[in-house]
Amino acid sequence: VTVTAGAQQAFDLLARILVEPRRTVVALENPGYPPLRAAFAAAGARIAIVPVDEEGLIVERVPAQAKIVCVTPSHQFPLGAVMSAPRRAALLEFAQRHGAVVIEDDYDAEFRFGDRPLDALQTLDRSESVFYVGTFSKSLFPALRLGFIVAPPWAHVALGAAKQAADGYCALLAQETLAAFIGEGHLARHVRRMREVYAARRKTLLDGLQRDFADWLQPVPSAAGLHLTALADRSLDLETLVERARRRDVGITSLRRFDADPQARRRQQGLAFGYGSLDERGIAEGLSRLRKLAP
Amino acid sequence: VTVTAGAQQAFDLLARILVEPRRTVVALENPGYPPLRAAFAAAGARIAIVPVDEEGLIVERVPAQAKIVCVTPSHQFPLGAVMSAPRRAALLEFAQRHGAVVIEDDYDAEFRFGDRPLDALQTLDRSESVFYVGTFSKSLFPALRLGFIVAPPWAHVALGAAKQAADGYCALLAQETLAAFIGEGHLARHVRRMREVYAARRKTLLDGLQRDFADWLQPVPSAAGLHLTALADRSLDLETLVERARRRDVGITSLRRFDADPQARRRQQGLAFGYGSLDERGIAEGLSRLRKLAP
Repeated sequence: VTVTAGAQQAFDLLARILVEPRRTVVALENPGYPPLRAAFAAAGARIAIVPVDEEGLIVERVPAQAKIVCVTPSHQFPLGAVMSAPRRAALLEFAQRHGAVVIEDDYDAEFRFGDRPLDALQTLDRSESVFYVGTFSKSLFPALRLGFIVAPPWAHVALGAAKQAADGYCALLAQETLAAFIGEGHLARHVRRMREVYAARRKTLLDGLQRDFADWLQPVPSAAGLHLTALADRSLDLETLVERARRRDVGITSLRRFDADPQARRRQQGLAFGYGSLDERGIAEGLSRLRKLAP
Repeated sequence: VTVTAGAQQAFDLLARILVEPRRTVVALENPGYPPLRAAFAAAGARIAIVPVDEEGLIVERVPAQAKIVCVTPSHQFPLGAVMSAPRRAALLEFAQRHGAVVIEDDYDAEFRFGDRPLDALQTLDRSESVFYVGTFSKSLFPALRLGFIVAPPWAHVALGAAKQAADGYCALLAQETLAAFIGEGHLARHVRRMREVYAARRKTLLDGLQRDFADWLQPVPSAAGLHLTALADRSLDLETLVERARRRDVGITSLRRFDADPQARRRQQGLAFGYGSLDERGIAEGLSRLRKLAP
């Protein structure tokens, strides 16, 4: 396990050791997480964006020359789909057939509601092709800046050297505090408790959306995480709505922010609602203000 | 000011924004600090090593095509020279004439004994060509992993983007704690107190070297820092000595570890003695054990 400064440094270190500038093709989910794209772009990768659907990444759309495929199988960011078992198998098969690697960004697997989780790609992998990236940004808090990579053995030396060159090592006080926190069982307890808290917030949000916004927002089914996404008809002007909401202290994000292909003709649009730092009263108040601004 | 994960991340971010792979020539002091070299090598720089003497970097030996020059003017690492005022002026003149930048690694400027310090290159710079790198690894402790860059205004946007892509930002708890520690005057008090502590350690070390090792070690005059270097005749086998000392729990480092040009015919050799984490008794005991192993 390589300890990193959050998931972002994990992406950055992986980009450093895996990308040959101007050559390596990296397949990224679209819509997806812009800072991940930024790390690979900074390393000089050729980026191929691949659409997602309700089963996650559409594996058959990954270009054959892709040498790195990045996915968020537990909870697609930002749409929320869980990658289906057949897609997981197809992705691993792709990696093995093309000598590609998979970066499994399991950014908020801790907060899963409902069904039993599917096996991680890292668990299913039989060909040493998966890098598993975890973070404590969701289970604890982002300003902690701690995450980790579980890498195949062949990559350990390069990853260690990249970490050394990047910043040496992560602050020991934070690492040791977190290790004790985990070791004494506090993290597991915290996650259990917060899972209920987040489930209640999620219910408030989902109920509100279904009750008061059904005429223009369709929540995307999703079983995990600290945010919920809802799709809207393409004719609506969501950018103006987001801006007006911001002026009323309602923070919502347009899906367009996560779209690497904003010129595409047939483009989904929608809103992402985060509830990691907003309690049920706050959620209700936010929805009520938003309702008055509805497009 | 860009807050970084120690000086190492500062070097790494600067390498990312300033180096064009396989093109940019970076001039580094030799002997010098290997992790600095590693950061520039990882970014694909062409590395030119430049010798130092008792006035610091020999500026006239910097190749004209160098676009980045890295120096440790307060306390050359590892030899200990303070860069002279004429050399500082010559380096800034070089930078201005060739459109080069200077990276001023002021790694332990806090612990200066004796003379009033010379102005930093950053202070003397009139052409926005100096990046000043500071760290709290020496004034506090390395595992804190906090440092900073003072950059010319033209580089702020690129540096911010590089930090974002690298790891987002540094852990806020550590940053806020340090800010309070500085703001309440504790850092200044700590440095004042430690300066006396380190001066006493340095005296113990220097006295011991001059008394018991004068036959084969010549300490390099030096007015700052947490380590002292001593040169030895080239005929001695210091590598074996370092290894034998290590087996007796005496940690000394051969200068060869800092030499980027180990094939050079006329090569200095010597030993670096660190006293950042060893009290006077420990220093005396270490010297006594070392004396018995003398080559």
